[in-house]
Amino acid sequence: MDLNRESLKLHLENRGKLAVSSKVAVRTKNDLSIVYTPGVAEVSKQIHSNPSDVYKYTMKSNSVAVVTDGSAVLGLGNIGAEASIPVMEGKCVLFKELANIDAFPICIKTQDDDAIISIVKNIEPVFGGINLEDIAAPRCFGIEEALLDIGIPVMHDDQHGTAIVVLAALLNASKVVKKNPEDLKIVINGAGAAGIAVSKLLMCIGVDKNICTPVKEIILCDSRGIIYDGRPDLNSFKKELVKCTNGQRKAGTLKDALEGADVFIGVSKANLLNSDDIKKMNRDAIVLAMANPIPEIMPDEALKFAAIVGTGRSDFPNQVNNSLGFPGVFRGALDANAMKINNEMKIAAAHALAGCVVPKKDKILPYTLDKNVVPAVSEAVKKAAVESGVVRKV
Amino acid sequence: MDLNRESLKLHLENRGKLAVSSKVAVRTKNDLSIVYTPGVAEVSKQIHSNPSDVYKYTMKSNSVAVVTDGSAVLGLGNIGAEASIPVMEGKCVLFKELANIDAFPICIKTQDDDAIISIVKNIEPVFGGINLEDIAAPRCFGIEEALLDIGIPVMHDDQHGTAIVVLAALLNASKVVKKNPEDLKIVINGAGAAGIAVSKLLMCIGVDKNICTPVKEIILCDSRGIIYDGRPDLNSFKKELVKCTNGQRKAGTLKDALEGADVFIGVSKANLLNSDDIKKMNRDAIVLAMANPIPEIMPDEALKFAAIVGTGRSDFPNQVNNSLGFPGVFRGALDANAMKINNEMKIAAAHALAGCVVPKKDKILPYTLDKNVVPAVSEAVKKAAVESGVVRKV
Repeated sequence: MDLNRESLKLHLENRGKLAVSSKVAVRTKNDLSIVYTPGVAEVSKQIHSNPSDVYKYTMKSNSVAVVTDGSAVLGLGNIGAEASIPVMEGKCVLFKELANIDAFPICIKTQDDDAIISIVKNIEPVFGGINLEDIAAPRCFGIEEALLDIGIPVMHDDQHGTAIVVLAALLNASKVVKKNPEDLKIVINGAGAAGIAVSKLLMCIGVDKNICTPVKEIILCDSRGIIYDGRPDLNSFKKELVKCTNGQRKAGTLKDALEGADVFIGVSKANLLNSDDIKKMNRDAIVLAMANPIPEIMPDEALKFAAIVGTGRSDFPNQVNNSLGFPGVFRGALDANAMKINNEMKIAAAHALAGCVVPKKDKILPYTLDKNVVPAVSEAVKKAAVESGVVRKV
Repeated sequence: MDLNRESLKLHLENRGKLAVSSKVAVRTKNDLSIVYTPGVAEVSKQIHSNPSDVYKYTMKSNSVAVVTDGSAVLGLGNIGAEASIPVMEGKCVLFKELANIDAFPICIKTQDDDAIISIVKNIEPVFGGINLEDIAAPRCFGIEEALLDIGIPVMHDDQHGTAIVVLAALLNASKVVKKNPEDLKIVINGAGAAGIAVSKLLMCIGVDKNICTPVKEIILCDSRGIIYDGRPDLNSFKKELVKCTNGQRKAGTLKDALEGADVFIGVSKANLLNSDDIKKMNRDAIVLAMANPIPEIMPDEALKFAAIVGTGRSDFPNQVNNSLGFPGVFRGALDANAMKINNEMKIAAAHALAGCVVPKKDKILPYTLDKNVVPAVSEAVKKAAVESGVVRKV
């Protein structure tokens, strides 16, 4: 049976994948009096008097909302809230299985930004964190921005989860090819949620994770080619980015950009490149072709000239997969009592993730279900949260 | 250790009571490909093409949101969303333990009615039902009204759950004292969420559950005494009710109302009555004094003159408790693919609940954790949903 049919069968037989369960028994009248009324009133009074006790006495300490409006689901596009549910349930399953976090899907019908922002702010009480998911660019930027200061960690995973895992992959790949990360000339294709977040985080690629070295050698491309300062059609997010990328104001196509580049990062479309394009890159090129399910260039084709190739797929070596990032990041943020997920935490996550393997050409990242990843990443994220001063006083 | 301390300890040790769990295993790469990408895309596409398949392939078929704004939590009043969480988690635990429903707390920060209505409408996709909880009267009426036609069952439990269980209690109590339910003279004290819903449902107390007999002999009282047509201070909900209650336009105090009454139903305040007040009632009086935790009159005091006494408490006979109602009602509504919970379903639930015991003076209702209740109630509710034509075509 193929994957699609297997997946349909699994969902049909289980009627979805997610359940809610009780951590406490209700077998006797006494149980009922403690779990529910009248005993529970005392717990509510306690929280009413000491609002921060909500973390001590409720599920908030371990719960994350996976919030989407269904506007950019996987590669399927704007399929809406209902059709997004299987994906969001899947994400919640991974939160649970990988990081023991109680995540619940909030699939929002409206695609009005202000309404989405208001809904998330208003349903926040029971959640300890918010994972924004599959919200289309550029709307995702404004929505996330508006939610960063609500007092609990908020992260749009398509942006920052991807960026963290890409940064980890590059740290290890550059070790394998013995290049200094700060000296890499990087081309990113795709200026949506992932591309823009990857660009921003890669500006902090410096080997010393405590010093953000602004890298001038990042060139971001969109469907119209290289993005440069002064290109007339840039939206505000791209305009902001050209201030610190493409310092030489190079113009041209993606293929022009690749000339002399050390790294290609694709978060765009299938089959954009061939081996001749990779040939134009520097020696020991690193190619992360993450378009899903079909990459920008297939690994065998890229490997004719590249030293290291990664994709988003599990059936090739070097799978660059978000599930290596978000579980540990949220676990660490929750454990630290962090009020947000800042750059320091993302960079720490990337370095910790990179540290989970002894990097080789065909193993720049750990296996997606590697049980060592979440403990390592969450520990690093927690430490970074404390050191960068974003933890709640308890 | 007393109940309060036991409850605090249980909540602290477990950090709340509710968890999210996965119904499927994720142990191998293949599992991951079926549960999440790429396989899950096929499931999303399926729902996108056939929207009603959301019930087949996702958790929606078995999930209920327990929605509150924290404005009327237990007897604690307007304690807000955060402090309401322990109560809502408790409700969700009961949903799970009693009816195997996956319920999740949505504790809303705003107390603006339109905002609450809009939030519930917008987060509806992942939920198969909405249990409104602990929203203050009279706001709860308008909020529920605005949500009745969103296509999934919506019920404000403080209103209708209470009404269902009270109706069941009265059906059985009137059997024990050998009075015809339609002939009962009923006094209800408390014209909030519960009192108004109880009044409305009791108009359908007729022994034949298929015929709603409007009962003229209900008198509703609030803190200012008997509510009658023309009393100058009535809100719109009370005004609507006087059209079909208190037909003789009796005025006066609660104590005046009790003269010659067969039934007292209290959903109000502690210690309002003494045995002299009960003495004024008809012989074989039925007293349901449900103020929590201290009833309007203590059972031993009431029993000096009443034949049957029930309270909201588990430490006296005849506990009149909502958890006898809502689990079976929602189970039946979900199983029936009902689009709403109508009067027919509520009345069927009450009759089925009453049928769970052979009624005696000290056992007019089953024990709250009686495992026979949910199957009986849900079956009756399902049947009523089908017969009254409110089920979704599948």
